[in-house]
Amino acid sequence: MSENLKFAVIGGGSWATAIAKMLCVNLSEIAWYMRNDAAIEHIQKYKHNPNYLSSVEFDTNKLKLTNNINEAIEYADYVIFAIPSAFLDAELKNMTVSLADKIIFSAIKGIVPETSLIVGEHFHIQYDIPYYNIGVITGPCHAEEVALERLSYLTIACGDPDKARNVAKTLSGNYIKAKISDDIIGTEYAAMLKNIYAIAAGIAHGLGYGDNFQSVMMSNGIREMKKFIRKVHKMKRNINDSAYLGDLLVTGYSVFSRNRMFGNMIGKGYTVKSAMMEMSMVAEGYYATKSAYKLNQGYGAKTPIIDAVYAILYEGKDAKSVFKKLTESLD
Amino acid sequence: MSENLKFAVIGGGSWATAIAKMLCVNLSEIAWYMRNDAAIEHIQKYKHNPNYLSSVEFDTNKLKLTNNINEAIEYADYVIFAIPSAFLDAELKNMTVSLADKIIFSAIKGIVPETSLIVGEHFHIQYDIPYYNIGVITGPCHAEEVALERLSYLTIACGDPDKARNVAKTLSGNYIKAKISDDIIGTEYAAMLKNIYAIAAGIAHGLGYGDNFQSVMMSNGIREMKKFIRKVHKMKRNINDSAYLGDLLVTGYSVFSRNRMFGNMIGKGYTVKSAMMEMSMVAEGYYATKSAYKLNQGYGAKTPIIDAVYAILYEGKDAKSVFKKLTESLD
Repeated sequence: MSENLKFAVIGGGSWATAIAKMLCVNLSEIAWYMRNDAAIEHIQKYKHNPNYLSSVEFDTNKLKLTNNINEAIEYADYVIFAIPSAFLDAELKNMTVSLADKIIFSAIKGIVPETSLIVGEHFHIQYDIPYYNIGVITGPCHAEEVALERLSYLTIACGDPDKARNVAKTLSGNYIKAKISDDIIGTEYAAMLKNIYAIAAGIAHGLGYGDNFQSVMMSNGIREMKKFIRKVHKMKRNINDSAYLGDLLVTGYSVFSRNRMFGNMIGKGYTVKSAMMEMSMVAEGYYATKSAYKLNQGYGAKTPIIDAVYAILYEGKDAKSVFKKLTESLD
Repeated sequence: MSENLKFAVIGGGSWATAIAKMLCVNLSEIAWYMRNDAAIEHIQKYKHNPNYLSSVEFDTNKLKLTNNINEAIEYADYVIFAIPSAFLDAELKNMTVSLADKIIFSAIKGIVPETSLIVGEHFHIQYDIPYYNIGVITGPCHAEEVALERLSYLTIACGDPDKARNVAKTLSGNYIKAKISDDIIGTEYAAMLKNIYAIAAGIAHGLGYGDNFQSVMMSNGIREMKKFIRKVHKMKRNINDSAYLGDLLVTGYSVFSRNRMFGNMIGKGYTVKSAMMEMSMVAEGYYATKSAYKLNQGYGAKTPIIDAVYAILYEGKDAKSVFKKLTESLD
């Protein structure tokens, strides 16, 4: 079945590379768009992405590589976006082909800064894509472990369960188990909010808090996430499912998470600006913090951790004293 | 207030030492029982426990150290037991004084192997202590971080909230926040069950599973724990509170956990016997696994992780194939 489906991957980073690897297990051909011409040439010549997951070898006969986003989209029924949310809007503005009748899956996990929308909402509102043609691919899943073929579980959410099932089947393999969900709003918010908690975990670590506190933070974080998501989209969900709690844990406990690293630098005394410069990129959770905080002005969920991170990142408050106060709100 | 309360600590290990340290912040005197005469002498002379948390300095004027459990119990209103569950029964058999009118708090987190009971139940059934005089001190809390005075949160559970509050106040300080709970059964089962999940996490690590799988395991673990505890004692509780989820995480993600280490050796191919010999002690979770598995024969909760660990530890099943099958049950 899935042999006949046509997939395109949009993005040349580590998560895009991992998704391309998974798709190639079950498909004889995929389209793969990335901006970087040198990377395309390198993959064609050496079968490896030179910049990300460079240990992964591709069967280049299966890859329709292109630096033209329109070619990739035109080719596919299912278009999987896996670029940083900060670049999405600009990439989409290069688009001349229509997205009508395309099935859009987001593997992005963040907020589109220009519209302050999660990716699914952005496609729905800005491009008129109906929700039954929008889906989310969510972890818990470090791309690096996909490269190592370590067993990982994905959740594929879509309003239309047949489409979710198609994507799940096409990604599944020896080391990937994918389940489906109908909670496209909740899983996407969870994927975005977890980056804020990863920043908080990093700040705590940078300030010298230990593992005991980290576990209290995660335990409060998942309760806070549950309240927040319930305000955004009330439905029956188990917040302890892998797509919510698992995703929070794999990021919050990862020393490789860019969000956690960013927080750690803030906790150690870097200014927000210098931490960003040092990392030469912006952590997804930076935008997520602002967006979640602003959104919650309307919702009024009790979110002391998000509020604390916002105060530090956007109001110039001192991390040490903000966290000292935060510890009084946790239990 | 708490100045007038008399506390005894039973045990000379790291958690007992951490509790003695916390109590000494708020009390001018405590009784402290340990078997080891040399350790008592060392503490009296050098103000440090030579074997555990040896960086912690005690004001020895506050310590009524004794190698006679009866002296310590006789002295106190509140007796805090913090010895490995495997030694509890033998220690209690040395007891000649009565426990009537004593308030017993367990900081043990395990199953008493001789009776297959959690500690609270053991005191209730074997020593006729009414439940309003029984309590539990639970984490998430590595003793090592108490030694470093890193902020830690405790949950103090007792059927009688006044007694829980007394213990909470007496343990609280600059780096300890203690909240109270009335779920003495649930918190104690959680503290015991988490050790099984820590063994499972260790086995997975030993077998080569990565962080993605670990987060799925923890996410499934907390759901399994919730089902199990609900069968044991149904009441309104939030399984994501620190005493349940936080305690699971601090142990499951700790590379210092003896239970996780034990599991790791099993995953790497040690037999159960040789792993125990190598560690020169028995991990609490070893007994907990048997007890939880047997108990659940009556309850019938769906507990694939506990079942898998039981099959490996007690039925001689091969870890690799048991876990391969387990991965099919998780999501």
